[in-house]
Amino acid sequence: MKNLVEYPIPNLPEKTLPRVVIIGGGFAGLKLARSLKGKPFQVILLDKNNFHQFQPLFYQVATAGLEPSAISFPLRKIFHNTKNVSFRMAEVSRFDSEIKRVYTDAGYVDYDYLVLGLGADSNYFGSQTIEKYSSPMKSVSEALYIRNKIISNYERAINRAKMEDRKALMNVVIVGGGPTGVELAGAMAELRNSVLPRDYPELSFENMKVVLIEAGPSLLAAMSDEARAKAEEYLEKLGVDLRMNTRVKDYDGRSVHLEGQDPIETETLLWAAGVKPNQIQGLAESSYAPNGRILVDKFNEVFDHPGVFALGDNCLLADEEYPKGHPQVAQVALQQASNLAKNLVRATKGQDQEPFKYKDLGSMATIGKHLAVVDLPFVKFQGILAWMTWLFVHLMAILGVKNKLFIFFDWAWSYLSFDPSLRLLIKPRYVRESERKELIEQK
Amino acid sequence: MKNLVEYPIPNLPEKTLPRVVIIGGGFAGLKLARSLKGKPFQVILLDKNNFHQFQPLFYQVATAGLEPSAISFPLRKIFHNTKNVSFRMAEVSRFDSEIKRVYTDAGYVDYDYLVLGLGADSNYFGSQTIEKYSSPMKSVSEALYIRNKIISNYERAINRAKMEDRKALMNVVIVGGGPTGVELAGAMAELRNSVLPRDYPELSFENMKVVLIEAGPSLLAAMSDEARAKAEEYLEKLGVDLRMNTRVKDYDGRSVHLEGQDPIETETLLWAAGVKPNQIQGLAESSYAPNGRILVDKFNEVFDHPGVFALGDNCLLADEEYPKGHPQVAQVALQQASNLAKNLVRATKGQDQEPFKYKDLGSMATIGKHLAVVDLPFVKFQGILAWMTWLFVHLMAILGVKNKLFIFFDWAWSYLSFDPSLRLLIKPRYVRESERKELIEQK
Repeated sequence: MKNLVEYPIPNLPEKTLPRVVIIGGGFAGLKLARSLKGKPFQVILLDKNNFHQFQPLFYQVATAGLEPSAISFPLRKIFHNTKNVSFRMAEVSRFDSEIKRVYTDAGYVDYDYLVLGLGADSNYFGSQTIEKYSSPMKSVSEALYIRNKIISNYERAINRAKMEDRKALMNVVIVGGGPTGVELAGAMAELRNSVLPRDYPELSFENMKVVLIEAGPSLLAAMSDEARAKAEEYLEKLGVDLRMNTRVKDYDGRSVHLEGQDPIETETLLWAAGVKPNQIQGLAESSYAPNGRILVDKFNEVFDHPGVFALGDNCLLADEEYPKGHPQVAQVALQQASNLAKNLVRATKGQDQEPFKYKDLGSMATIGKHLAVVDLPFVKFQGILAWMTWLFVHLMAILGVKNKLFIFFDWAWSYLSFDPSLRLLIKPRYVRESERKELIEQK
Repeated sequence: MKNLVEYPIPNLPEKTLPRVVIIGGGFAGLKLARSLKGKPFQVILLDKNNFHQFQPLFYQVATAGLEPSAISFPLRKIFHNTKNVSFRMAEVSRFDSEIKRVYTDAGYVDYDYLVLGLGADSNYFGSQTIEKYSSPMKSVSEALYIRNKIISNYERAINRAKMEDRKALMNVVIVGGGPTGVELAGAMAELRNSVLPRDYPELSFENMKVVLIEAGPSLLAAMSDEARAKAEEYLEKLGVDLRMNTRVKDYDGRSVHLEGQDPIETETLLWAAGVKPNQIQGLAESSYAPNGRILVDKFNEVFDHPGVFALGDNCLLADEEYPKGHPQVAQVALQQASNLAKNLVRATKGQDQEPFKYKDLGSMATIGKHLAVVDLPFVKFQGILAWMTWLFVHLMAILGVKNKLFIFFDWAWSYLSFDPSLRLLIKPRYVRESERKELIEQK
């Protein structure tokens, strides 16, 4: 975290309307900013990246199916021609609710309404070694890192004379049986079955294991029994080694140690086992639930902090239907943002606020190249039709006509050719030491 | 450079045919390997990257027009189903022509024929400060680095309160009036004129200078008078500040110091002023011309090194027509590779070798969005038709149907929308210190 700077963020538009400062350009923050287009507010959107990331497709970046740019959307471009929304790339350190001010590495900004859409990061449940050696996938950079790591492991494996020495480089172990883990395992198995053997005819891919580890008794715990059963069946058909009721004890970068089972050799442990909310300085300890989520009322307003709201993964809104809070999924974030936008506008008209009510639109997960499981409110189905539904829903959710088209072409091409073409190991180049240091400090 | 390893590269195919080891998967090396497909040789292609890079379009990666993957082609994929060609990602340190052995960081490999297609790197003409602070563009990583640098400079500029402090971040200075410099300058000017002002409405882009510096009296020295005149006219229309007969004295990362002119403030100095051949240990000093190119005979064979060949930018082949050697362009590399492939096959049949004869197919450069200058052997033309010719020739030269299609869609989209969408600042993520070190050591 950089030092606080004691001047206002330069070049912001003059404040003529009530100012809504949104921290985070994820599903919640972006949706809110878009919903406030042309409304009587001045919106300042802050994010440490200059793009929105479409999380549901990170696994395709990690498995060489899509380019990072296909699922990353420049925030400035989204708000071209939108006079009341300004974007600023900045890292936020804390806010002061007494004087209504947010501090960032680019200066401070004063707000009338503050909205926290901070999202969540990987949860290693306290294990420092797992945090150190495993690969998380909570950003497009992390997904790209996984892709590069896997490709470079194969380039290294081929230079080992003994099969024994290649095992740890070839095996891939995924921890976490939610949609991310399931989708990663399916895509990795497809790579092993049809892509990698053609790239590395010198290696024997029967020796490559794709292992999916889940601590609970089944995959996709939030989905229907049918979806769970089919997901397991599909993954097993693809040759994924499923380990239910299995806990990871430790990982040293080379072997995954399990409770009561033999260790698995791998240099690639993909960690999708859980999330913890991102935090910001400025709230009392009592504002947080024990799991780190910010406690909000039915209007997403933080208790005892009038004018401060939290949305999506980093908040906990308990109601009758969801006494322990809502699931940390994109739909909740989007709907909360929508509701808050309406409430902010209602307030300007002196109308009553509407409490948030989650409408569960269902959930889905894709497995491999042409199968998926789909739970909709009134119908559940699996297989190729489910996969087409998954394709359609995700294409529609992607921002921008160009991205939709390009992803569609990309998918169609991969489907027809069985050969994604993104197996490039492009290493970053640092021209000088000081820049390398700058990058490290930025982290 | 890593230490030599004293074992053979593992997992190479057994040697049953005369072995051709090719170092470098650039235009020359790749063309040669492709030309030897199915011929009675065992080909081992070595490159430090696992992909071929299409240099003529680096400038589009640097100016957010194309993704790196659109112009990078996985070498393994190119040789799917080619039994007599093996690729290995390895850094070559030296060779020993006495025992016909090449040493790499993955082990050594013995050859019957050795082909050096090492290419060329940026030439800073001895200036350490320019090397340290300027940005070269001789690889796809370097091009991507330039893109990220420019975008991050704008994100920084917007956080500076005073116009004075923004100048160095906004100005772009390009050194070198060859095709690369001209194409970069045109694309940068287009960004300034139509893209950046919409992204950063808070900044005034009249204040952004795009300067193109050339030491000689005109741009595109190798092209016709008409092409040179039109290129200057087009660039001036786009608002590029052209400085001919201008020499860069020094650069401190903030101001470019010129001979007899005021310095120009910029944090972005793009260096396209010259190249120097890449070298390898194993040749006597007498094998090199004073400019570092390897002296070869009319069959591209290195003098006094039977069985060792050099192709393309890193060699110097003098004949009656080109007494000082051929131009360092893709066409020469491709034609030399083609000729060598034929000669290698001829040798197996006891036929005579053919000396290399360069057929100049012409040259071209594009300027901005829809103009170009083209010199063909029998006709020279400029303008929109030239631009279409440029498009067609480059699309045809791109490897693979998918890449052709995607680049075509990308260009069509940018052309129609005036808005490239790749303005993402995706920073690499390092999970741990040791990997960061590894990366640094790899350089």
